[in-house]
Amino acid sequence: MSMSISVTAIADIPDIMQGDDLARIVGDCLIASGNAPMDGDILCVAQKIFSKAEGCIIPLDSVTPSSEAEKYAAELGKDARKIEVVLNESTEVVRAFRHSTENEGTMICRHRLGFISANAAVDESNFAETDAVMTLPPDPDLSVARMQSALAARFGCQIGVVMTDTFGRPWRIGQVNVAIGLSGVPATLREQGNEDAWGRTMKVTESAFADELAAASGLVVRKAGKTPVVLFRGLDWTPTKSSYADLLRRKQEDMFK
Amino acid sequence: MSMSISVTAIADIPDIMQGDDLARIVGDCLIASGNAPMDGDILCVAQKIFSKAEGCIIPLDSVTPSSEAEKYAAELGKDARKIEVVLNESTEVVRAFRHSTENEGTMICRHRLGFISANAAVDESNFAETDAVMTLPPDPDLSVARMQSALAARFGCQIGVVMTDTFGRPWRIGQVNVAIGLSGVPATLREQGNEDAWGRTMKVTESAFADELAAASGLVVRKAGKTPVVLFRGLDWTPTKSSYADLLRRKQEDMFK
Repeated sequence: MSMSISVTAIADIPDIMQGDDLARIVGDCLIASGNAPMDGDILCVAQKIFSKAEGCIIPLDSVTPSSEAEKYAAELGKDARKIEVVLNESTEVVRAFRHSTENEGTMICRHRLGFISANAAVDESNFAETDAVMTLPPDPDLSVARMQSALAARFGCQIGVVMTDTFGRPWRIGQVNVAIGLSGVPATLREQGNEDAWGRTMKVTESAFADELAAASGLVVRKAGKTPVVLFRGLDWTPTKSSYADLLRRKQEDMFK
Repeated sequence: MSMSISVTAIADIPDIMQGDDLARIVGDCLIASGNAPMDGDILCVAQKIFSKAEGCIIPLDSVTPSSEAEKYAAELGKDARKIEVVLNESTEVVRAFRHSTENEGTMICRHRLGFISANAAVDESNFAETDAVMTLPPDPDLSVARMQSALAARFGCQIGVVMTDTFGRPWRIGQVNVAIGLSGVPATLREQGNEDAWGRTMKVTESAFADELAAASGLVVRKAGKTPVVLFRGLDWTPTKSSYADLLRRKQEDMFK
């Protein structure tokens, strides 16, 4: 049988302010758009609205750069205060560089949560404050768990929630959304040991299910149109206890380093 | 307005044999499953059925390993004949390693087409021949262009076709499908210079559209169920001349190396 899913960007999510009850707002918008949650639905929700609701916006005039930040600033042509925030969010600077064609350089960092990403996922666009930067929420798994349980209680159904952020990739052009917080949604689906269609054992197949969802959410989201919530319906999955950390290779297992 | 797309795994694609007319078979299956193509549809089609149709299966008893292959074989605990095929498909071995927990090692290679992937995308599962390996088609863009033009002519509509393969990622657990051949489908959608929702210029946003499609196709495909064709309907895109190579960073721009 052909298996089909729908992927829907939920319209008219309002601007989010610090302290907003995100689960209530998202629930209201799901109803208003005719998409009240059903058993088996998964929501991908952009990190930015969690960061806004949780007050993760740092005015640059509140930041005093360290000497390390000043050193990177000179090298990369970046604001030392932004770099100070990046360093505070990081446990390691994997690489820092500035291409000749670029106005300012990039730092590839290991975020305190374990992700490798550009500028430790510190963001400068898509929020109202100027001269400020936005960091990831302190605990993305907790943020989505709260939304998941509030929506599940309100609508009386089993759903999953994934927090997404937009990352660059080594070797490949362009950005894709990846999963940085999970509630109920399996990080990966293991097919190791299953037989393939010809009866032989498949050696290593472990689909990055949560990252597939995150990437797919990008197909319907318009950044400039403020649609941070994407609803998946019709997927075949089983709720599980999970964490974004299930998607991170341990340092010693990094086969590409 | 909420934007919604559907993603459908097309059922009952038969086993593909060398010389098969893939476009005819896929077209027949689209009709049989009630999914005759419409303007704006995009198909993601797994590399494996192109490789099978184009005869990219190499019996290992036809392969004589070089001394370089023998050297890697001893180091990695792999069949030297498989390694010989991997080396023939590669322009560079980026890294070769064997973790203590693994039966055999892995080679990270730059494929002759420019991708960085494990074992140069040489595959050992999901085809009928035992003691054989499968390579990528010689020219994936050409393979999908043929399918695209045949289906467009048959159904009288504008569609796009993406060839997908399953790759691992640095730093993140699990595999996702990526785009390795494009016909008509933009590799990326640039939002650089667009204004964000708050009227400021967005600095760098370039969504890897074709890779988003490829990753999303993984949500509905069951490897063991032989569903190599996935239909996307309802997307907002404009046909363009494109190539898988548009997704590859130039070596000197690799910001993660």
